Amino acid sequence: MIREEGYLITEGAGCMVPDDRVEQVKIRPRMTADELVRAMGRAGAFNGGALARACDIYEAMLRDRKATRFFGLAGAMVPAGMGGIVADLIDRGHIDILVSTGANLVHDLIEALGCHHVHGTAVCSDVDLRDKEINRIYDVFLADDAFVTLEEFLQGFFGDLPGDRPLTISGLLAQVGSRLDHGILATAAKKKVPVYCPAIQDSVFGLQYWLFSQTRPVVVDAFGDMKALIDRCYGAERAGAMLVGGGVPKNFILQGMLLTPQGFSWAVQLTGDRPDLGGLSGATLDEARSWGKLTAEAQGVTVYGDATITLPLLTASVLERLDRG
Amino acid sequence: MIREEGYLITEGAGCMVPDDRVEQVKIRPRMTADELVRAMGRAGAFNGGALARACDIYEAMLRDRKATRFFGLAGAMVPAGMGGIVADLIDRGHIDILVSTGANLVHDLIEALGCHHVHGTAVCSDVDLRDKEINRIYDVFLADDAFVTLEEFLQGFFGDLPGDRPLTISGLLAQVGSRLDHGILATAAKKKVPVYCPAIQDSVFGLQYWLFSQTRPVVVDAFGDMKALIDRCYGAERAGAMLVGGGVPKNFILQGMLLTPQGFSWAVQLTGDRPDLGGLSGATLDEARSWGKLTAEAQGVTVYGDATITLPLLTASVLERLDRG
Amino acid sequence: MIREEGYLITEGAGCMVPDDRVEQVKIRPRMTADELVRAMGRAGAFNGGALARACDIYEAMLRDRKATRFFGLAGAMVPAGMGGIVADLIDRGHIDILVSTGANLVHDLIEALGCHHVHGTAVCSDVDLRDKEINRIYDVFLADDAFVTLEEFLQGFFGDLPGDRPLTISGLLAQVGSRLDHGILATAAKKKVPVYCPAIQDSVFGLQYWLFSQTRPVVVDAFGDMKALIDRCYGAERAGAMLVGGGVPKNFILQGMLLTPQGFSWAVQLTGDRPDLGGLSGATLDEARSWGKLTAEAQGVTVYGDATITLPLLTASVLERLDRG
Amino acid sequence: MIREEGYLITEGAGCMVPDDRVEQVKIRPRMTADELVRAMGRAGAFNGGALARACDIYEAMLRDRKATRFFGLAGAMVPAGMGGIVADLIDRGHIDILVSTGANLVHDLIEALGCHHVHGTAVCSDVDLRDKEINRIYDVFLADDAFVTLEEFLQGFFGDLPGDRPLTISGLLAQVGSRLDHGILATAAKKKVPVYCPAIQDSVFGLQYWLFSQTRPVVVDAFGDMKALIDRCYGAERAGAMLVGGGVPKNFILQGMLLTPQGFSWAVQLTGDRPDLGGLSGATLDEARSWGKLTAEAQGVTVYGDATITLPLLTASVLERLDRG
Repeated sequence: MIREEGYLITEGAGCMVPDDRVEQVKIRPRMTADELVRAMGRAGAFNGGALARACDIYEAMLRDRKATRFFGLAGAMVPAGMGGIVADLIDRGHIDILVSTGANLVHDLIEALGCHHVHGTAVCSDVDLRDKEINRIYDVFLADDAFVTLEEFLQGFFGDLPGDRPLTISGLLAQVGSRLDHGILATAAKKKVPVYCPAIQDSVFGLQYWLFSQTRPVVVDAFGDMKALIDRCYGAERAGAMLVGGGVPKNFILQGMLLTPQGFSWAVQLTGDRPDLGGLSGATLDEARSWGKLTAEAQGVTVYGDATITLPLLTASVLERLDRG
Repeated sequence: MIREEGYLITEGAGCMVPDDRVEQVKIRPRMTADELVRAMGRAGAFNGGALARACDIYEAMLRDRKATRFFGLAGAMVPAGMGGIVADLIDRGHIDILVSTGANLVHDLIEALGCHHVHGTAVCSDVDLRDKEINRIYDVFLADDAFVTLEEFLQGFFGDLPGDRPLTISGLLAQVGSRLDHGILATAAKKKVPVYCPAIQDSVFGLQYWLFSQTRPVVVDAFGDMKALIDRCYGAERAGAMLVGGGVPKNFILQGMLLTPQGFSWAVQLTGDRPDLGGLSGATLDEARSWGKLTAEAQGVTVYGDATITLPLLTASVLERLDRG
Repeated sequence: MIREEGYLITEGAGCMVPDDRVEQVKIRPRMTADELVRAMGRAGAFNGGALARACDIYEAMLRDRKATRFFGLAGAMVPAGMGGIVADLIDRGHIDILVSTGANLVHDLIEALGCHHVHGTAVCSDVDLRDKEINRIYDVFLADDAFVTLEEFLQGFFGDLPGDRPLTISGLLAQVGSRLDHGILATAAKKKVPVYCPAIQDSVFGLQYWLFSQTRPVVVDAFGDMKALIDRCYGAERAGAMLVGGGVPKNFILQGMLLTPQGFSWAVQLTGDRPDLGGLSGATLDEARSWGKLTAEAQGVTVYGDATITLPLLTASVLERLDRG
Repeated sequence: MIREEGYLITEGAGCMVPDDRVEQVKIRPRMTADELVRAMGRAGAFNGGALARACDIYEAMLRDRKATRFFGLAGAMVPAGMGGIVADLIDRGHIDILVSTGANLVHDLIEALGCHHVHGTAVCSDVDLRDKEINRIYDVFLADDAFVTLEEFLQGFFGDLPGDRPLTISGLLAQVGSRLDHGILATAAKKKVPVYCPAIQDSVFGLQYWLFSQTRPVVVDAFGDMKALIDRCYGAERAGAMLVGGGVPKNFILQGMLLTPQGFSWAVQLTGDRPDLGGLSGATLDEARSWGKLTAEAQGVTVYGDATITLPLLTASVLERLDRG
């Protein structure tokens, strides 16, 4: 090991490492979220260190006025109470394009219609739950009657659609959002943020649409959103991606840059998947560089863990930084 | 503990357990795959035990002549060489409905067009790979020129489409398959097995379709496949699901039964995700019972692990059983 | 589903669930760590919910003046900067008995001797690192010269030992600690907190001890700590366990109660392992009830994730609560 | 990308990759275990590819007559029925040194005394199990009376020990094994294979030893096995390690080489842990190169997954190869 001017020189190993020490974490009572994250950053190891770097990257991406910010939302984040963070980030102007799953949007709609997810348990008899008309999402319960409320809303909504020409998925979702007063879809509609949902048919939303279409066919163009999305990608001076979970939202966001000469400059991934299984959800952001989805110089970090912990902590840290100016 | 007629009585614990012993595994050289799985079954613990039960369930599902068999294929299974198993199962008549991802179908098409994935490494510089025009999928490499070949094929293919009325996604994929002579899409087309791909726009397939549509718009109806799928679900006397990975294929298959009075009678899930993160991909099959996706009596098992190991072993075991009659 | 007096009645499902709603998380800039944890608790789902429950349990265990508090420390927590939290908890009187691994104690000693772990990277050539005499622990680097310093200290230390009768492992560690002025061993020695390390030979500490013993044999009694530990278990009016990682520390702590008529009343586990692999590190705390390690009524929760994130957040939340009185 | 004489040249990326194609797996009924593994190897991706490489490495290590073969056994492998494989490998002369955990050896002893683990379920009430005196290990059950049988054996055994001078842990285990007629300890004693168990006090074995020592103290020297082990490491012309799980066995084996000028030439790791949590159990074998535990040229591979699947498959494949000559 060579030491030189405060550096451990390890170029041969592909990196020059500043000789900055792992600082043992000291907890002070009443630390703010960002103070805690900065202590994790000085420790700087494993996923705690990755989370601190993720905050730096997300802060940089939000502070850059020329950045287009994509947000991917997979997993069961709305039933888990993380939808409020997403709606708030939209409201504060920190999300320009949202890509999510049918499931998250259906559950957002359910809450916007006044129904509620409740605290349940993961250790129980699912057959008994079925008898009691309760649906389980790990340790969250949702009563069947939420879907009755949802059906009434959606059938009425679909009945009001013109139906003379193919709709886009984002257009459909914007119209839903415009009838609501809180939640992700409502806030996105209010702030004119497009919500993409490539696999919308893969949700109760889709099933309801199909029910309706039996009486009056309305075509939703699967590819109808591609033009606007790719125009946005071309037009972006710089682009950043915050990816909660993997799945379709991650892939749809990252592939958007494939047709452009550039790539994402910032990317943060909060995921519980691991790379060795080979799936896209667990793929590293480095792998995305080989495809040109991230630029060679992009700042990217993956934080492995449950986003019900990492997303609130990251958001609280970064909003605190922005608040401090 | 009470012992009675060969049982450990543990009803209070919600189960009556046969007093069958964990047998220590004995390996004989030249064991067949099924002999090995049966030894794992007599050991019967953890994921080895689950894999043996999965073989029993899949065997039952394939032997039942009145069963409709769904197959969900997520993850990067085709780049990993697992596509051959799926094509073979279709060819043998063991898959009635396939649901997959854009990525798997794109890579199947790439191989059907004569291009190849090659053995690479996960430990390398992705920036260098980018310079050399190699795309990485964990430890599999694919040269950029495959996408040139793909573009030529798809632009020609799209140009031949009539375009006078909206297509369905499965209709589009069947037409692609009919032009190919090996692989999943080719075999499915030959055997008239529908291939559903709800998020097709989320793939290079989708990007190419969009490129084409700039010159001549052809509408693909996002919901166009729902009627045929749900008719199939209604018509199924009994239904079984083999789920490789989670994601959209798993959800799309399981939700198909939500609108019918019945549920799946058999389900096997090979996944690397865990339930505690709350996402659908890692959700237990018991959770699916609370929603009515599986019947109360359904046989279901999840095998946690990489499907590049569990799928070949399961398939070899079950085909051996069927072969023995 | 039956609703009654604010409850969802699901006794059949083995649980009565308060009808408390999942509250969508709202982030306010400058939230304290405990405010953030409480917001996660009102969301209450998945591992975020589990972390909030873990804080409640740990708070209860620390507030109970008659509780004996065990702390298990596995994983590479000291190289990752988490040792400072443990030393601080000892100093504040929140740990009565510490069980750890040889690796953590060796790295604590290295830091106490003035050497440092530094921020490295997990993506590099380990062969080059070897050439440069740098040892890697995921993304933490440690120069070989730390082990030279360690050798000097330990050989001197061993030379001063009387050696006329078998030592206990905790006795040996207490003597090491008494020569240091900061870190876990130093603080434990100062506060007379016993440090158990059943597999001490499985560490560089052990290798050094062996080097020394070649010239002058000193016997360390492998079972020498059992009596004091089990006396402590017997004498505990109530006992609680905070388990960071699994491994030997978890098992050694939990089995301590097997010989007593009681069990642990509180237990929190921060782990990245999952139960389905069958190992003790990933085993649920419910499983521990079947062995009688936890009482039937014990409060126990597992938070899946990286302790470099969950431990600082949990500690900051609970210390804040205690500070507020 | 440059193509030259059958190679994809990617030196810049740190690797030269043979242009060998991912072959889609074809399953033939009645394939042997090794035929299946070889098909996985021609697919060559993700953990299936890693398993095939692990078989090549383990085969090479077993065929080399000058190799010293270490075997590390962590996890709950004996309750899961994997102990039979280990005993058989010892009997066939394929293990020279075994390192395991107290738990595995206790459960091996329980089976050797005629008690049995039985097939249970992971979904049950552990409080009810406790009432019925059944202990749970994920989905394996063990009745309390096994521990009564164990106590009788061990108290008698300890009573026969001379007790005039400190014992080593491996000496103690060899004497236990010599009284048994099947299982790991019995076979190891018969074949004179040393069994190391650094944390033996961390098991019911340890608790029983402590019970006994209250009446008549017998000292077991924690470091008593180090000399013989390190002599073996020094004497090894070449050394290989098969690591099932991580924990103390993995670390104890790998650190054995730290004091010698050489390192392991072959290493295979079957684990469910991942590297990003920083713990030793999930650490890559590359990381071990930075410490000098593996040589720079060593062949090493990690297969992520449950060893109840990967260990039988690997063993069946390699024994088949050796059987074919």
